[in-house]
This record gives sequence, structure tokens and C-alpha cells, in this order.
Amino acid sequence: MIITILTDFGSFYPAQMKGVILSKLKDKGKDVTFVDIAHDIPPQNVRAGAFALLSSVRYFPVGTIHVAVVDPGVGINRLGIVVESGGQRFVGPDNGLLIPAARSMGTPSAYKIGSQFDASNTFHGRDVFAPIAALLAEGSSPASLGPRVGPKDMSFGEPKRTATGIEANIIYVDRFGNLILNMRKIPSTDVSLKGIKLKRVRTYAQGRRIEPLITLGSHGFAEIAVNQGNAAEAFRLKAGDRIELEEI
Amino acid sequence: MIITILTDFGSFYPAQMKGVILSKLKDKGKDVTFVDIAHDIPPQNVRAGAFALLSSVRYFPVGTIHVAVVDPGVGINRLGIVVESGGQRFVGPDNGLLIPAARSMGTPSAYKIGSQFDASNTFHGRDVFAPIAALLAEGSSPASLGPRVGPKDMSFGEPKRTATGIEANIIYVDRFGNLILNMRKIPSTDVSLKGIKLKRVRTYAQGRRIEPLITLGSHGFAEIAVNQGNAAEAFRLKAGDRIELEEI
Amino acid sequence: MIITILTDFGSFYPAQMKGVILSKLKDKGKDVTFVDIAHDIPPQNVRAGAFALLSSVRYFPVGTIHVAVVDPGVGINRLGIVVESGGQRFVGPDNGLLIPAARSMGTPSAYKIGSQFDASNTFHGRDVFAPIAALLAEGSSPASLGPRVGPKDMSFGEPKRTATGIEANIIYVDRFGNLILNMRKIPSTDVSLKGIKLKRVRTYAQGRRIEPLITLGSHGFAEIAVNQGNAAEAFRLKAGDRIELEEI
Repeated sequence: MIITILTDFGSFYPAQMKGVILSKLKDKGKDVTFVDIAHDIPPQNVRAGAFALLSSVRYFPVGTIHVAVVDPGVGINRLGIVVESGGQRFVGPDNGLLIPAARSMGTPSAYKIGSQFDASNTFHGRDVFAPIAALLAEGSSPASLGPRVGPKDMSFGEPKRTATGIEANIIYVDRFGNLILNMRKIPSTDVSLKGIKLKRVRTYAQGRRIEPLITLGSHGFAEIAVNQGNAAEAFRLKAGDRIELEEI
Repeated sequence: MIITILTDFGSFYPAQMKGVILSKLKDKGKDVTFVDIAHDIPPQNVRAGAFALLSSVRYFPVGTIHVAVVDPGVGINRLGIVVESGGQRFVGPDNGLLIPAARSMGTPSAYKIGSQFDASNTFHGRDVFAPIAALLAEGSSPASLGPRVGPKDMSFGEPKRTATGIEANIIYVDRFGNLILNMRKIPSTDVSLKGIKLKRVRTYAQGRRIEPLITLGSHGFAEIAVNQGNAAEAFRLKAGDRIELEEI
Repeated sequence: MIITILTDFGSFYPAQMKGVILSKLKDKGKDVTFVDIAHDIPPQNVRAGAFALLSSVRYFPVGTIHVAVVDPGVGINRLGIVVESGGQRFVGPDNGLLIPAARSMGTPSAYKIGSQFDASNTFHGRDVFAPIAALLAEGSSPASLGPRVGPKDMSFGEPKRTATGIEANIIYVDRFGNLILNMRKIPSTDVSLKGIKLKRVRTYAQGRRIEPLITLGSHGFAEIAVNQGNAAEAFRLKAGDRIELEEI
């Protein structure tokens, strides 16, 4: 059984989640392969977490269980959902985090979980979602875990046309400083960012060293990069920032 | 067999420890599930490491082997201990790191290891503790690995009453900037930190956005947090700092 | 089957590689143990990646598969190699990254891979190297994956004698701020760095607290350290920097 974990927890809380899952399993984990997707999601940035999950789940086999926790509403009397889609299962808060990934795999069915848990003063990732993941790993069906619900949706937003260009949001900044935008294609005409022209390319190799580029990433979103450089540093931008691509 | 690893090593040294364990096992790891608790403990901060271990071990099943290495005395001619407590086993330096966690699980029995190793010029995590973990995983009893000893103890210290309030230490700062204190309960009267009132709450949800709070964490220690913010940044504090909670 | 992964990708891309490997395996990973060597190699720093790999592979058992990706030439129409050496297998770009590690284990044989893949617009770690690792894990021989080639070599360079001392490069900076140099032994006479004397020692324990040291690390390279301190911060140096050790 493959169980992935994605959180904004940094260290040692994810290990507690794994400990709980291993403790609940009859065979104490002999059959579990954990894969950490990311634990460095910017704190409480649901969109960044949703992007990392969306980008990753398609590479996992049918049957994989994904546990994801990024939630500014920790401690609020709201528990979570289990979502089934395309043969994969998703466990996490009902704040939209799971939905883009689940929708990318098929038609999601969501189930509300948690009436079996005490919502107060708990760490949901460890005390609610990890035990649910163990139940799924042992063969429970999502439908057996709670009533069918319509989950809270989320969207990465759409770029907006302005008088002078295109307004977009930065969803995520990866380790190379590449800026992933909420745009599903690259502009059809030349654009600049903060006055600097972005070369529109199909692959990084088409840019020269330290040349600013805009390309369509393998995740399906436009991204701004500096070849062998760091666009986030060069343009002083971060996840959540709004930018304007000026038409030139 | 579940083996957790906690260090202040950052990257690639923990992989060497896993490589050694896998190499020593007859079945080359088919049955081992590694769980990284943390590798980002502030360098050589034994208290921070002890806190992360103490907070985590209770979530692991009986039989788990915990290997932990945070040690300012690297290279000193002192090897380590194996501790058994509550059916879990702990391997690491004899500097107190393992003791709060071991004590939280039961009555610890400690055994001195290492006479079988060359203490000089070795990297103990990889060259001493990893082989010992492999022996435990293959069925050796802690008592077979060395003579019974009284391990070096450690304490997180106690908060002190002062004329104007309570003096406490910051044991750990988590990824959200929450400040974990060496206090086992929250103050019984209103307090402020650096002149700013801390709302005493049972759960984070009882605070407003960016309101400074003090609450009892699920780990059993008081923690100072800024709801949806970062207390370490707001108050400019870090692990190891001493603070005063002023009574108001 | 043990598969290690080393990249400069930070988070979530390594998980995609694991997802691909698990998806390709007939038993969906029941028999795979993943070990992350490092994902925080300085972006596109091939030497730093080669050092981390070289330092680690000797601790893994025969049969281990190492997948490593650090490549400034991403997107270039060049695929990769599989290298077999001393019973271990290495998969990655043909840019020298794998060679010091492979050579440390025996006499490397390299095979060119990739004619079976589309080189354009792919993320090689996930779309080329991960599937190759899965083929190796399922029993394919390296020789069956492509034609024998002479791989691109790499060297950490050699320290140079100057009129006043020794010029060396910093290959890697570890989490403690230790500076690993491209020198295979420590100087035979006293030296200083930026005017500060470095005590030549065999183990860290021979230095006093915050005393700057030079010692031969267990990886076989000289390293400069500040006992219980951080040499990188103290000397304001980073991976890739060239330094001069002045004879005194």
C-alpha cells in the first residue's frame, strides 16, 4: 500500500502521522510504502499545497492513498473529507486542498469524516486524517467512513486581461526560483515582467544562460524562469504575489 | 521492523546511516520501514532534539527502534547507550537526548554500548549507532549489547517565578514559528511577553487572526503562537532563548 | 530492492520520481526501500552532488540502485547513462555527476540510455531516469538498456601551490557549516585562512570550543570546521568558493 503525505508542517509532525498509521495497521507497516510529497509548503498556503498535490498524483498508481494537510483553520470545529477519484483516495481538510488533484484523476466522490473524532484541541493530521488513512489502507471504503458531501471547491483563479497586458498570480515558487503562474498557456504575444522581456520558449534549452523565460511547465501551468538562475530572486517575487505581464 | 531516525545532520549523513543498517541486515531491508523524525534539529541543541523525540515516540508501536543523534561532544571518547522502555528501544549518545522520550514510555533500562567499536575518528551515528540498530532489528536484546548503566539524565528545566512574572526557556521553535516553552501548564493569570498580552486559550481557534496566544500544546508543553502568523518572527525569539512572561 | 535518490530538486519532484518507479513495478513497490540521499544540493552544482553521492554509496549493499539528478543542462538534447560498478548501479545525466561515486566502488561500465525516450520538453529525472531505475529493479541488466559508452568524466580539481600557500576549492558545505575542500590530505605545515590559524587535528575533540580546525573527514577530503560553531558563517564562504590557505 502506497501512502503519500503532503503538509506544511516541516519536521517531526509528519513522523507522528506515520507513527499513528503504522500503529493502527495490523501488520505494523510491512506493506506500507510512505512517500513524502512535500512538507515545506508555505505555511497555510492552501493554493501552493493544492498545486504540489495536483502536480504529483498522476504519477502514482491506482490505489494510492494521499494524505494532505495545509489548513489555516486548524482547531476550527470542522473535520475533513475523504475523496475517491480515478481509483486514488485523498484524505484531508475540506478547504479545497484536495480538489484540483482529485478532479485531475477523474470524477471525485467526497465523504465527510470525523463525527467519530473529538474535533476540539486535536492535531487533525495526526489524530483524524492518519487514522482514516490507516482504515483505508486496511480496506475500508471511503463511502463507509461518512456521509456523501459536496466538498468545498477551490480554484487557482484565472489570469485577467488588463489595458496593458495580463494580470496573473504566482501559485508556487520551486527550489530553482521558478515562478508557477495561474495560467494554463503562455501568452500568444511577447510580454515583459517589470520591464524585462520574457522569451517565450518550449523548453529551457531554448534560452541562453540567465535569460528570463516563460514556458509551459510539464504540470500544465505557465512558469517564469531564469535559465541557470533564480527568477524569484531576480524579480523579488514570492508565492501569492500578483504580477502583470506587459504586452510589448 | 520500524526504525526512526532523528538527527541534526541535515542531508546525506542520515542516508549513510540507513545504508549501514540496510547493509547489516540479512534480508537487506525488506522488512524495515524507516521514518525520519527530523534532521533539522538546531545543530547540537540536545534539548530541542530531546523535545522532538519525546513528542513523537508515543505515536509509534511497541518494538519500534529509535536512533537519535544530537551531540556537541562528537569525537569525544564517549560512545553511547541503548535504552529500553515500554517495549520501544532507543539508541544514541549518553548525553540525555534519549531520556525524556524513554521515560515517557515507561521505566527505562540503559545499557552502555561501544566497547566493540573504535571511538576515535568515527562518525558515531553511522559507525556505532546504525550497526547497533541493525543488531536490535535482527533480534539482539539491549542487555546483550553492553553492561547496565545509569544514563546521563537531562531536564528541560523549570520555569522560575520572579518578582514580576515567570521566567521560562524556549525549548523548540516549530515551522509555524510557535515557541514551545519548558512549562507544563499555561499561566493561571493573564501575562504579556515584551509588553504584548498573550490570550490564554485552549485551542488556536479561540484566537483571532494574528492575535498572540498561549496554549497547552498536544505535546504537553505551553506554547506561544500568533494565530495564522509567526510568533518567532513577531517576537524575534529562537530556540534556547530565555523569556519573561510578565503578570498583568 | 534499495533505490536511493539524490537531486537538487527540493520537494515534490522527488516524490514524482518515486511515484513513477512505484507505478512501473509489477508489485507496486512492496519490495522497494527508497532512501533519499539529499534533495538540497545547491541548484545545478554538479560537484556538490557528486561529492554527496561519492560520500554515501560505499555504505549501501551490493545491488543498490542510485538515481541522481543535478544538471544545469536540463532540456538539452542529451539523455543519460546507466553505470555499473562494484555491483551497484547508477542512473543519471552524463555530466560527470555519477562518476566519482561509481569509480569509488570499482571499475565503472557505462551505457547510454534514452533513445527510447523523447528528449524534448521532459523532466528527465521523472520521465527518463525513474523508468530506467524501475527496469533495473525488475531485473534488466544495464547492458540491455543502451550501447556501451565512455561517460563524461569529472574531477573535483586539485589544490594548487602558490607562492604563499595552497589554493583550494570548497566542494560542499554541510549543515554544520563545515567546508569540504578538494584536498585529499591536510597541509603538512601550519596554515591560516583569512589570517586566522587553523589547528590541524585528527578529530574534532582535539579542538577547543569555537576554535577553527582543519581535519581529514571520514569522506577522505580535508574539511575546515569551527568546533561547536559554523565555519561557513565565520569565514563567510560557500560551496564553489576558492580559498587560499596561507602558510605560516
